[in-house]
Amino acid sequence: MPTVEELGERRIIELFLERFRRTSEMAVPFGDDVAAITLNKETVAVLKTDVLVGTTDIPPTMTLRQAARKAVVMNISDFAAKGVKPRAVLVAVTIPRDYTTKEIEEIGEGLNAGAEEYDTYIIGGDTGEGVDLTICCMVFGVAKREALILRSGARRGDILAVTGLFGKTSAGLKILMEGHVTPPDIRDILVKSVYQPKARLREGLALAKTGVVTSSIDSSDGLAICLHELKKNSGIGLDVTNVPIALEARKFAEIHGLDPEALALYGGEEYELVLTFKPEGWRNAVKAVEEVGGDLIAIGNVVEGTEVTQRKGNVVEPIPLRGWEHFKKHV
Amino acid sequence: MPTVEELGERRIIELFLERFRRTSEMAVPFGDDVAAITLNKETVAVLKTDVLVGTTDIPPTMTLRQAARKAVVMNISDFAAKGVKPRAVLVAVTIPRDYTTKEIEEIGEGLNAGAEEYDTYIIGGDTGEGVDLTICCMVFGVAKREALILRSGARRGDILAVTGLFGKTSAGLKILMEGHVTPPDIRDILVKSVYQPKARLREGLALAKTGVVTSSIDSSDGLAICLHELKKNSGIGLDVTNVPIALEARKFAEIHGLDPEALALYGGEEYELVLTFKPEGWRNAVKAVEEVGGDLIAIGNVVEGTEVTQRKGNVVEPIPLRGWEHFKKHV
Repeated sequence: MPTVEELGERRIIELFLERFRRTSEMAVPFGDDVAAITLNKETVAVLKTDVLVGTTDIPPTMTLRQAARKAVVMNISDFAAKGVKPRAVLVAVTIPRDYTTKEIEEIGEGLNAGAEEYDTYIIGGDTGEGVDLTICCMVFGVAKREALILRSGARRGDILAVTGLFGKTSAGLKILMEGHVTPPDIRDILVKSVYQPKARLREGLALAKTGVVTSSIDSSDGLAICLHELKKNSGIGLDVTNVPIALEARKFAEIHGLDPEALALYGGEEYELVLTFKPEGWRNAVKAVEEVGGDLIAIGNVVEGTEVTQRKGNVVEPIPLRGWEHFKKHV
Repeated sequence: MPTVEELGERRIIELFLERFRRTSEMAVPFGDDVAAITLNKETVAVLKTDVLVGTTDIPPTMTLRQAARKAVVMNISDFAAKGVKPRAVLVAVTIPRDYTTKEIEEIGEGLNAGAEEYDTYIIGGDTGEGVDLTICCMVFGVAKREALILRSGARRGDILAVTGLFGKTSAGLKILMEGHVTPPDIRDILVKSVYQPKARLREGLALAKTGVVTSSIDSSDGLAICLHELKKNSGIGLDVTNVPIALEARKFAEIHGLDPEALALYGGEEYELVLTFKPEGWRNAVKAVEEVGGDLIAIGNVVEGTEVTQRKGNVVEPIPLRGWEHFKKHV
């Protein structure tokens, strides 16, 4: 019988979902960035949970404060993708027996820092003894049903865009986990993207107000996987005209003889938003994001078909469904 | 520097809370059975999370289906104590690498069974690889602010009551963990209380409607600890006139030369409700619980002072703050 390592996260989730009965009050289908349930005709409660596991998700050199902050930020990022303001956070932590007061304090500070940065609060939780540190956050918010941006709304002719450049986190993880020696100025930026990820909440909230976003996803599973998710959920094709590669990732790739596009496409743990826009609303969208101090970078188009492709001059190549999946190794 | 084992769960929670900034929108103080946040003037969103950890919380003979079901039920029990209907459940599971399809299926079935029994639904979640199995559930509901039953409302002269008899789970755990040999008819009932705990949701919802409950707590930390919590939060004393001991726990104690009152008072993982009532509403409360097929058992009175005591004839003895606390051994 296959083990979880062979099954992979997607199949495990399917096995669960096959066993869960459904309610008609679900306002967002399974598999989107958040869950939601009907409060009344116009309003839905939005809920999200994501768990950070010590041994598998926290690089050895990351501090507990950084890890705890990240556990909050990665949940906020899903709210950013849906354009929903987080109203409250709950936290369940399992703590190894040998942790001391200092380590508990660091975790507490990190959790609060993550919440405070995004103008929200931790209002409850649970602690238990664990073999490993796990930090499970849950975020709650309220949204107008009509305003929720799902993964399923992209239409042919829409513009495909992202809120930032990619590849820094992949490079940073290579430095931390595989020991790639890199000049300090670049190294600091790359490593910081691992230690101090930011959720694009201001951007997501500003974009939700414009009404011109047709679909959205947070990029934590890696850019290529997210493009495939948008494609699948919206039933369209995506054609990428320029892969958004961060300058530092490009330099890192050059130094180590790596493919910069691969760093940008097949990474993970990067918290940008990947979105599609009605073409006539594009300028409004750019303006809205700039007003909150962010960037919106067009990277391609929504096209007919069922493929995710990359255009290089006259050549069109497929972007494979590849990246980080829990339980499986990088494939 | 003290480790978590020396600190205990209560101190760990304090260390966290000292670091969390507060919002004026919190509708329930930290430390009650659930968290809540203001939706509008009359209504609050109610949230709860509780995590079940494989190595420390699941007896070796418990099936994964039972464990997963229990992970849901123990969260529902807190909603029962507050008289709030659970509307949706989210689940984050960390799964060891060597689990197979069969084990994933069992967990999925157990989660769904727990939700379905209490007329609610799993609407989302997360999975990750873990060194240990952890099942973290989060429950969401909506309540009228006025109708929420807190731990803080008990007043002198109120009647103290419970929804069932205690001690079965302590005895059952002794059978499972310490190998106490017990006749099969009693054994089955005791062990079942560990494997198949029930939340008193029907009772809690029926009681909330009566408007005569002044305070309430779920008994998962053990009866004595819960009495002390009600005492502390309400700023009153509690005088227990009869400790509610289950018949099977009494028999088990007799066979093994144990103190039946200790089994009932200092256990844990038992999901009854412990409540206080305005005396003039008592008959209504009993009727409401009987109508949904439950029992309400008066066990004492709310008195002046700051003690939890037990009355035996003319002798009044203190009931110490003792029971199960995570991270610490049974003390």
